[in-house]
Amino acid sequence: MFSFHLHHIDACSAARRATFCTPHGAVEMPAFMPVATQGSVKGLELEQLRGTGAQMVLANTYHLALRPGETLVRDLGGLHGFMGWQGPILTDSGGFQLFSLAQISKVTDEHAVFRSHIDGRLLEISPERAVAIQEALGSDVAMVLDHVVELPNQPEIVREATERTVRWAARCRAASRRNDQALFAIVQGGLDVELRVACARQLRALDFAGYAVGGLSVGETPAQMYDILEATVPELPADRPRYLMGVGRPQDLLEAVRRGIDLFDCVMPTRNGRNSMAFTDAGPMRLRNLQYQADPRPLAEGCPCPACRRSRGYLRHLFMAREMLGPILLSIHNLTYYQRLLADARAAIEADRFEDFRRGKLRGWGKDEG
Amino acid sequence: MFSFHLHHIDACSAARRATFCTPHGAVEMPAFMPVATQGSVKGLELEQLRGTGAQMVLANTYHLALRPGETLVRDLGGLHGFMGWQGPILTDSGGFQLFSLAQISKVTDEHAVFRSHIDGRLLEISPERAVAIQEALGSDVAMVLDHVVELPNQPEIVREATERTVRWAARCRAASRRNDQALFAIVQGGLDVELRVACARQLRALDFAGYAVGGLSVGETPAQMYDILEATVPELPADRPRYLMGVGRPQDLLEAVRRGIDLFDCVMPTRNGRNSMAFTDAGPMRLRNLQYQADPRPLAEGCPCPACRRSRGYLRHLFMAREMLGPILLSIHNLTYYQRLLADARAAIEADRFEDFRRGKLRGWGKDEG
Repeated sequence: MFSFHLHHIDACSAARRATFCTPHGAVEMPAFMPVATQGSVKGLELEQLRGTGAQMVLANTYHLALRPGETLVRDLGGLHGFMGWQGPILTDSGGFQLFSLAQISKVTDEHAVFRSHIDGRLLEISPERAVAIQEALGSDVAMVLDHVVELPNQPEIVREATERTVRWAARCRAASRRNDQALFAIVQGGLDVELRVACARQLRALDFAGYAVGGLSVGETPAQMYDILEATVPELPADRPRYLMGVGRPQDLLEAVRRGIDLFDCVMPTRNGRNSMAFTDAGPMRLRNLQYQADPRPLAEGCPCPACRRSRGYLRHLFMAREMLGPILLSIHNLTYYQRLLADARAAIEADRFEDFRRGKLRGWGKDEG
Repeated sequence: MFSFHLHHIDACSAARRATFCTPHGAVEMPAFMPVATQGSVKGLELEQLRGTGAQMVLANTYHLALRPGETLVRDLGGLHGFMGWQGPILTDSGGFQLFSLAQISKVTDEHAVFRSHIDGRLLEISPERAVAIQEALGSDVAMVLDHVVELPNQPEIVREATERTVRWAARCRAASRRNDQALFAIVQGGLDVELRVACARQLRALDFAGYAVGGLSVGETPAQMYDILEATVPELPADRPRYLMGVGRPQDLLEAVRRGIDLFDCVMPTRNGRNSMAFTDAGPMRLRNLQYQADPRPLAEGCPCPACRRSRGYLRHLFMAREMLGPILLSIHNLTYYQRLLADARAAIEADRFEDFRRGKLRGWGKDEG
C-alpha cells in the first residue's frame, strides 16, 4: 500500500525528486507538511488548506492522545474522518512533546512517565503504546517513539538516549500491526556526527519504511544542523523517504533538500503568520509595521493566495484591530509560500538547476550562501 | 443607480418579496446582512462569506472611522476595495455605538461629543460629519446619524432624542452628495407607539431611499418589539426597503418579516458561533456540552456548510482544545443557517405560504406562536 519512486537526483547536489504513495494518495517530494497539532491546521478550513497546495499534513500524537483521546478519534472515523482531511496524514510519536511540553518524571528502558501539560495527570508511554495510539489514530505514516534530550548536553546522556531510541525503534517495529500504516524510524545523536552515523546504520538494519532525522532545530546553529545532515543523510537508504522533523525556515528547507531530504514539517508558517509575519521572496515582512499602514500593494506580486488579493494596508488594519482574519490570511499566505517554494524546488531538481534556484532564493532573502 | 422592486406580498401576512438594486448588485429581500464591524466578518474569508449565501454586508462607521480612519479606507479603494467584498455594503452611522460603546460627553443639536473607546480621545460627530465619513467609506447604503437613548427612560428624554433624530436626518439628507450611495432614515421613539408613528411620518416626508427601524432589541420584550413594528411599519412608504437594525434571533426575523420588514443585520450568528452555540431547526445547540463528545452526526442533516461535513464530536473537540477552527466553523454554520432561513422565507412568500412556514419554524425551535 506504500511505495517510493525516486525520479531524479539533481546534477549538482543531492536534491531528490520523488513520489511517495500512501493509501490516501501520492506525495510529490520534496514536500512540506503543515502542522495540524490538535486535528486542525490553526485557522484554516480544509478547502483553504488544499488551496495552499498542501499534500500531506502532520498531526501530533501527544496532543490528540491527551485530548480528545485516540479512542474517540478512532470512533469518529480515525484522523481522516475526524478532521475531514482525505489526503495523507503523518503522526509524530509524541517523543518531542514528551520531552518539551510535558514534564518528564522518569525514563527507563521500559517506558517514560510524564505529567500531562493539560491537567497534570501522571501518564506513561512505551514504544508499544506509542504505536497502538497511532494505529488508533489511523495516520498513513506513524513515527517511532524516540528519546529526545536537550542540547547541548553531556555526551554520556546524549549517547544513552540515542541507544535507547534505537532499542525503542526495534520495539515499535515489532509492535506495528496495521499494513495501511507505514512506520518511520528517527535518527537521534545530538550534534555528535559519529553517534548520528551509528544510529542511522543501526536503524537502517531494522528496515523501516522511511527515515527521519530528529532532534535538530532545537537551538544549534544552522551550520551545525547542515553538518549533521551532510553526515547523516548518506547513511540512510536511498530508496526510502527521508524526513527532517520540525524544520524550519525557508533557507533551512532548501539547504536540507540540497543534502537529500524529501519531507518537512514546521509550525513556523502558521505560528509566524498568526504573529503578523509574512514570508516573501524578499525576506520576512512584519505587517504590524507602520510602514505598511497605507501601502496599497499586495504582500507579494504573483502570489495566488487570498491574502494577496488584499492590500498590505488592509492586512495591517486587521492585525491592529485584532481581527481573526489577519492571522488566518497570513497563515494561508505563509503556507502557500512554503508550498510554492517546494513546488519550485521540485521543478528545479527535474531541470538540474536546483543549485541556481537555491542561490537565487537565498539572495532574495538576503542570506549568505549556505 | 438604486431601485426597489416589490414583487409580491404574502396572502396572509405583510411579508414582502422584493429586490433592491445597488451599484454593487441586487439584494433579494427579505435579506440578512452579516456584520463586518471592522471591515471583516470575524473569522471568515470572502469565499466562505459568499458560500454562506450572504448578498450584502454591514460595516460599522464608528469603528472604521476610529481605526483605521475613513481617509485610509478611501485611499485603499473604499470599503469594497479595502475589504475585497464586491457585493453591496451598508454602513451604519455610528449612532448606536456612540451611545453604547463610546462614552458620550455632551449632545447638543449641533453635534455629539464623545470619548473614543480605543484611546479615550475626545471627538465630535455631527450629522454632516457622519455623512462625510460614510461617503469616504464608499458604502452603497449610508444611514443617517440618530440619537439613541437607553430604554426604559423618561418620556421627555425619549421625545427629545426622537425629535433630534428627525432634525439630524434632515441635515444628513441635505449633506448627502454621492449619487452612488443611498441614504436611509432611522425611525426612533422608544416604546412609545405615538412617538414612533410621528417620527416615521416626519421622516417619510423627507423622502429617503429607504427606512430603518432603530432602537429595538435593546432590552425590551419580544412582544413589545413586535408591537412597535406593527405600528411603525405601515407608516413607512411601501415602495422603499424597510430595515430593522440589529435584530436578531431567528424567530425575531420571521416575526418582523411577517410585519413587512425587508432587511436585517445582527452579530448573533457570528458572536454566538464563536461561543460554541449553533443554530438549528430544533433550536440552539451548545457544542461544549458533554453530550456531543462522541456524537458522530453533523450539526444539521442537509446543511451544505463545511461545519456540517464534520461530526459534532469533532466540533466539540475544537472548542475544548481552543482551536480557532471551532469559532470559524460555527460562525459559517450560523450564517449559513440565517441565509437559508431567509431564502426559505422568500420562497414561502412567493408561494403565499409564509405563515405556515413561520409557524413550522417556531414549532421546531420550541417557541410559542408569536
